[in-house]
Amino acid sequence: MSDVRHRLSELRREFHRHPEPGWREFRTTGRIVSELERIGVDEIAIGRDALETDARMAVPDPEELDPWLNRAREAGVRPDVLEKTADGHTGVVAVLERGEGPRVGLRVDMDGISMRESADPDHRPTAEGFRSEHDGYMHACGHDGHIAIGLGTLEAIKNSEFTGTFVVFFQPAEEISGGGKAMAEGGYLDGVDYLFAAHLGLDNPTGTVVAGIEKPLAMAHLTVTFEGASAHAGKAPNEGANAMQAAATAIQNAYAIPRHSDGMTRVNVGRIEGGTASNVIAEEITLEGEVRGETTALMEYTRTELERVLYAAAEMHDCDVTPRVISESPRVDSDPALRDLVGAVARGLNGVDSVVESVEFGVSEDVTYLMERVQEDGGLASYLLVGTDHPTNHHTPTFDIDDESLEIGVSVLSDAVLECSRRRP
Amino acid sequence: MSDVRHRLSELRREFHRHPEPGWREFRTTGRIVSELERIGVDEIAIGRDALETDARMAVPDPEELDPWLNRAREAGVRPDVLEKTADGHTGVVAVLERGEGPRVGLRVDMDGISMRESADPDHRPTAEGFRSEHDGYMHACGHDGHIAIGLGTLEAIKNSEFTGTFVVFFQPAEEISGGGKAMAEGGYLDGVDYLFAAHLGLDNPTGTVVAGIEKPLAMAHLTVTFEGASAHAGKAPNEGANAMQAAATAIQNAYAIPRHSDGMTRVNVGRIEGGTASNVIAEEITLEGEVRGETTALMEYTRTELERVLYAAAEMHDCDVTPRVISESPRVDSDPALRDLVGAVARGLNGVDSVVESVEFGVSEDVTYLMERVQEDGGLASYLLVGTDHPTNHHTPTFDIDDESLEIGVSVLSDAVLECSRRRP
Amino acid sequence: MSDVRHRLSELRREFHRHPEPGWREFRTTGRIVSELERIGVDEIAIGRDALETDARMAVPDPEELDPWLNRAREAGVRPDVLEKTADGHTGVVAVLERGEGPRVGLRVDMDGISMRESADPDHRPTAEGFRSEHDGYMHACGHDGHIAIGLGTLEAIKNSEFTGTFVVFFQPAEEISGGGKAMAEGGYLDGVDYLFAAHLGLDNPTGTVVAGIEKPLAMAHLTVTFEGASAHAGKAPNEGANAMQAAATAIQNAYAIPRHSDGMTRVNVGRIEGGTASNVIAEEITLEGEVRGETTALMEYTRTELERVLYAAAEMHDCDVTPRVISESPRVDSDPALRDLVGAVARGLNGVDSVVESVEFGVSEDVTYLMERVQEDGGLASYLLVGTDHPTNHHTPTFDIDDESLEIGVSVLSDAVLECSRRRP
Amino acid sequence: MSDVRHRLSELRREFHRHPEPGWREFRTTGRIVSELERIGVDEIAIGRDALETDARMAVPDPEELDPWLNRAREAGVRPDVLEKTADGHTGVVAVLERGEGPRVGLRVDMDGISMRESADPDHRPTAEGFRSEHDGYMHACGHDGHIAIGLGTLEAIKNSEFTGTFVVFFQPAEEISGGGKAMAEGGYLDGVDYLFAAHLGLDNPTGTVVAGIEKPLAMAHLTVTFEGASAHAGKAPNEGANAMQAAATAIQNAYAIPRHSDGMTRVNVGRIEGGTASNVIAEEITLEGEVRGETTALMEYTRTELERVLYAAAEMHDCDVTPRVISESPRVDSDPALRDLVGAVARGLNGVDSVVESVEFGVSEDVTYLMERVQEDGGLASYLLVGTDHPTNHHTPTFDIDDESLEIGVSVLSDAVLECSRRRP
Repeated sequence: MSDVRHRLSELRREFHRHPEPGWREFRTTGRIVSELERIGVDEIAIGRDALETDARMAVPDPEELDPWLNRAREAGVRPDVLEKTADGHTGVVAVLERGEGPRVGLRVDMDGISMRESADPDHRPTAEGFRSEHDGYMHACGHDGHIAIGLGTLEAIKNSEFTGTFVVFFQPAEEISGGGKAMAEGGYLDGVDYLFAAHLGLDNPTGTVVAGIEKPLAMAHLTVTFEGASAHAGKAPNEGANAMQAAATAIQNAYAIPRHSDGMTRVNVGRIEGGTASNVIAEEITLEGEVRGETTALMEYTRTELERVLYAAAEMHDCDVTPRVISESPRVDSDPALRDLVGAVARGLNGVDSVVESVEFGVSEDVTYLMERVQEDGGLASYLLVGTDHPTNHHTPTFDIDDESLEIGVSVLSDAVLECSRRRP
Repeated sequence: MSDVRHRLSELRREFHRHPEPGWREFRTTGRIVSELERIGVDEIAIGRDALETDARMAVPDPEELDPWLNRAREAGVRPDVLEKTADGHTGVVAVLERGEGPRVGLRVDMDGISMRESADPDHRPTAEGFRSEHDGYMHACGHDGHIAIGLGTLEAIKNSEFTGTFVVFFQPAEEISGGGKAMAEGGYLDGVDYLFAAHLGLDNPTGTVVAGIEKPLAMAHLTVTFEGASAHAGKAPNEGANAMQAAATAIQNAYAIPRHSDGMTRVNVGRIEGGTASNVIAEEITLEGEVRGETTALMEYTRTELERVLYAAAEMHDCDVTPRVISESPRVDSDPALRDLVGAVARGLNGVDSVVESVEFGVSEDVTYLMERVQEDGGLASYLLVGTDHPTNHHTPTFDIDDESLEIGVSVLSDAVLECSRRRP
Repeated sequence: MSDVRHRLSELRREFHRHPEPGWREFRTTGRIVSELERIGVDEIAIGRDALETDARMAVPDPEELDPWLNRAREAGVRPDVLEKTADGHTGVVAVLERGEGPRVGLRVDMDGISMRESADPDHRPTAEGFRSEHDGYMHACGHDGHIAIGLGTLEAIKNSEFTGTFVVFFQPAEEISGGGKAMAEGGYLDGVDYLFAAHLGLDNPTGTVVAGIEKPLAMAHLTVTFEGASAHAGKAPNEGANAMQAAATAIQNAYAIPRHSDGMTRVNVGRIEGGTASNVIAEEITLEGEVRGETTALMEYTRTELERVLYAAAEMHDCDVTPRVISESPRVDSDPALRDLVGAVARGLNGVDSVVESVEFGVSEDVTYLMERVQEDGGLASYLLVGTDHPTNHHTPTFDIDDESLEIGVSVLSDAVLECSRRRP
Repeated sequence: MSDVRHRLSELRREFHRHPEPGWREFRTTGRIVSELERIGVDEIAIGRDALETDARMAVPDPEELDPWLNRAREAGVRPDVLEKTADGHTGVVAVLERGEGPRVGLRVDMDGISMRESADPDHRPTAEGFRSEHDGYMHACGHDGHIAIGLGTLEAIKNSEFTGTFVVFFQPAEEISGGGKAMAEGGYLDGVDYLFAAHLGLDNPTGTVVAGIEKPLAMAHLTVTFEGASAHAGKAPNEGANAMQAAATAIQNAYAIPRHSDGMTRVNVGRIEGGTASNVIAEEITLEGEVRGETTALMEYTRTELERVLYAAAEMHDCDVTPRVISESPRVDSDPALRDLVGAVARGLNGVDSVVESVEFGVSEDVTYLMERVQEDGGLASYLLVGTDHPTNHHTPTFDIDDESLEIGVSVLSDAVLECSRRRP
């Protein structure tokens, strides 16, 4: 098989056809392992060898995991890969040892989302035959391209004059903020001097590079279950403990949590379900919600306030409530020094016509767990954006990327990694 | 001065000109005492001699009491009366000892309300010169007539063949449910075998008598103060503890307290006030509210639920809350046996053209404290209605009564009292 | 096959084994038709011949109906019955013509509920082998017994000296208040002089008969869908129209609809579901709720208030809302004259040791549509209760009835029907 | 009388003794006019000559204005001044014509607030005998010092080599955002090339100068009255239209207005009052609230959302609602060019030890109406801060300023004005 660099588009399209949601990237992990073996690296840590099991978040129940495992098995993924990734342990880390020099990391996310891809003939994946084959799931955020870029960068570094250690983290479950912390604590991040991560698009066209984002939002996802007591709504409403009223009171007051003087906060209740019938006082209601903040402290302020609202709403209606934090991520900004390095590298590159120093990110990303750890240990981290023409917004059924941008991604990242080895830490 | 029976209208109009609100009936008490002395009774217990001080409810602050005391002094009320009624001790009990026989009680309420009486020339008190002289206060519920009837009945019993003991309770502060309990526990009710009370009107025309009401609502009035912390609403809303949000949450959930399978309940928040300025997070909000129930237990259910709502709403917004029960009254029904006696007596009377056995009362009255105590001790009680043509509803600025009904009231009550002495307990 | 009277228990247990929910009583209808043919009646109107199609309420979607139709077909129900009952047209009317005399009706309900029957060996249906064979569904309200009694009564009347016309209405979908109106308007109720209906149990033990209930609650079931606009909850919450907030506001204010001076009202939101993910402003939320009233007017007051709450809550959050009334039933009381007839008949019966004139029903029943129509046309109607020892409450997994009560039911009803023909209208 | 420059402290202390709230600065205006006449200027426009009457906001009712007018008359304010300032027309504009050159403006605010000044002997105004003589009102924000600085600057410019026109706007009613717009449209601002305004303190110590603030919040104050219908809360709650419930629903949803992606917003309900008694459904409730935004558009978004909430809450409870905007102010930033000029001037000054280029203001100020108009006409504006040691926060009973800072204020402003005439527009 030819070099990755000649197969970037082909590889991305293959991954595009097989999107797998968070913690279910069994086939994806298997395919990455194959490519890593083909490229030739010094160490491959698969699944539970690459992650800290106890630090995983938002892991689905076995009944949601197993069908994907079975599908991957049927698709020919190797038993040893399946074994190491089973029970919510997808992901892989590749290490290239090249003598003395800095330890440089690259984090690549790999999961798809649950969305039915457009079958419109004008949608390029449909027209050109690489539409999702996993009905109801889609690579609608560009992670298929990220994987291709990650593999291409690894290959490029292997073939370069790079000295030091290069570690690529293929991280699962970014979309549900579930995998970042587990990978940050998996051991391979220890001692990393420079950490890169990249995202395609985000409203930047092909040819633009943003050297490092800042102000991602700190975030926490929660599920909340109110438990009361049912009763006949006609005969004896007073005998119930109405979880519906508790939930409604909580929702109203959650959105009314005071704005904070230190900056932006967000709160949302995005899902609700509960109760059994119109003539029964609802016994159980479950909510899914989230809080965010411009800083980790602001997110935590909002979470604390939300919890007080939840407990008081439950008490008001004689119910119990159990709020559970499913996943979270801190706010961490790119280091200016590393942004400068990326900017300098990007400016000289073929195909790059605009280099932006920094943008405010405005959403959340659990790469911040990795960035935070690196920075705490004295390293530098930058999360850069590689422009790509995308016809519609991320997370829409007609999202697509421009395959031309994949090569730019490889160039920027591999040159930046190489530059790190020149500078030494 | 002539007999009360020839001055019923004149007396009622004099009281109408001088309405005094609850616990401030200094002049009213003084005038009743004068009439009692003129009639001649065996014992007159004034103010603190007639009441259990600790059982009073809804007593206003001294600064609200004192202007009325001063006005009464200037109007010539005797110092000994003022001394005994000061500090919220208005009211008087008269006792007529007539040998062997049952102890029969009559309860009469005597307070006005805070409402500006109509100055419309079509309003009879205005046309005929007996409009309220206490601006902003009015006898808009007929208690002026009740006092005249009470005095007339006492005089009639004195001049009758009645044997036994007849006690008339001129009770203060009925409108604010403040005086009933204090009079019930004042000592003079002990041993009462038969207790009567009467109300004029309530949509019954002159000539109708209702022998005894049932289903008054049990009731409790509360004031509730939420205390939080102020903060600048623009600069740092998060630094406040918003009593406004706590109050709004409490109000919404108070009205949503579950209906009860055992019968009718009511809840209301009728007054609110608080906060300082639009740009300040409100530190303190005060509510006035009430709960009612078809039974005392249902009222207590609603009060307990309300208190849970209040405490949880405060906690939700990091505030404190202090709910205070200002006054209350239980549900007590008229005894069928005594209703029958009243009905039998009323049927034979001149001027009575319709006798109704019983009606559902639907509102609250603190005479129930007296009725409850009498019934607990084995006595009988009935609260009857004496019809009177009233042009508009009770508690409206153009309320008035038909003076013809006063004589009917005296006849029904005195004949009923007399009949009790014939039957013996 | 022997007479129904000797097979009451056996029949009831057969129906118990095959519970079918509202509008899906295909097998039940088929079995009733077989029995009717065996008994021999003058007319059998099946499904769409017995119902007014446009007056049906709460009819499930085809995908919910069809599995039950298929199961009934596999169980051997005749094609002509299936054809006439398809698409939500279950139920059957039997007519016995016996010359001159009054037209007497008996309404029998026949549906089960969605509840998993207890597998506890102490639960008699389990112990004696007649537990539900339709997993997740159960005759937990006694309708299985009602069918047996209905068939038994028909047979008894056929073999009696009854003259006139006797019509038995096997009505579908009582539990979801869906079938009453359609059967009331199906034609066979026209001209009915006397209408009976009966319910087993309801806390009355075997041997007790209640001659006619009063005060069933008028009721309406609704589904309500709020539709807003989704948006990213972190990036641009202001771009959404939050159906979650609209629903919470509606729920809070629904429970706070003012109590009514004319009597008891109820409101409940018993089910809720909507939204897609914690980081998305919810676009659509669906509620299931109900309103009830002591009278039809009180129910309609509450429904009108609820609708105003719903529309205003939607408008407040820039959403649309569609409230749909799924089913409803009016309040109709038993006629005292017919209650007296039932009472007189019951008093003389073997096995009846207590006859109660009337009880307040306190819940809802769509037989009121049939009763209302009969009364409007000048006829009389009574809904009686036939006591049965039941170990646990109706609508619980361990509900069961005492088979002894079936014969009592047949005796009371057939004697009452016979008595009607003696009295003539 | 000696020059202002030698009386800065004395003047400020005189104004401190006589604080007057917005639109009631009759004595203050009179005293300023006297000083202007003493200094000698070319034109003095008093009250209605200086303001656009129709553009005034938050003007109190006559019964709130008149006592202050009478007090000023008794204090000896000249009849012509009183006539021109009556009916909410306080304020004065002074014009100095000095030949060719730019038109330079200085805006000075002059009102106090309603707060009782501390009588603590440690509070310097108390200790040194210049505590407020208007009980319940206080110069707790430093406007007393602003007036002294404004007069001192005018005198300094008169005695300088300044050429051009210098206009000083003594603006009323800043604290209630009522006077800015009226003065912006009063005519004297037309053609202004450079506009200055200054505020003492705001956490900057004596010796610090901030050359120009940015990001004041756009703001609107509202009063909102809900009108429903009263009813007896026990007898017939359904007959009311509950303004209390409407207000509670509105408050809950007001605080829950979605955060906006474009930046910071604020909403607050700071005052509430209404209803008559605990047993009456509330007929009328009045709220006082405000909305703010980081930009004028964000404030308007919040106001529009708030109004939708208000109207829907009223409709939900069958009430009417009237939201009234009492006052507002846009967001306008200082011009960097003028900030630079101020910074350059300040750096050279005696007593200035720290010059800050700019700070984010974070609150609201209606000087923005004047700045906006100047900028729209092509002029430059800067709002600077003159540090002063203040023992406690602005708007607290123990607020005080350091009189040393008054001279610094005069120096910075007069040098900046002079520098403008050197640069020419």
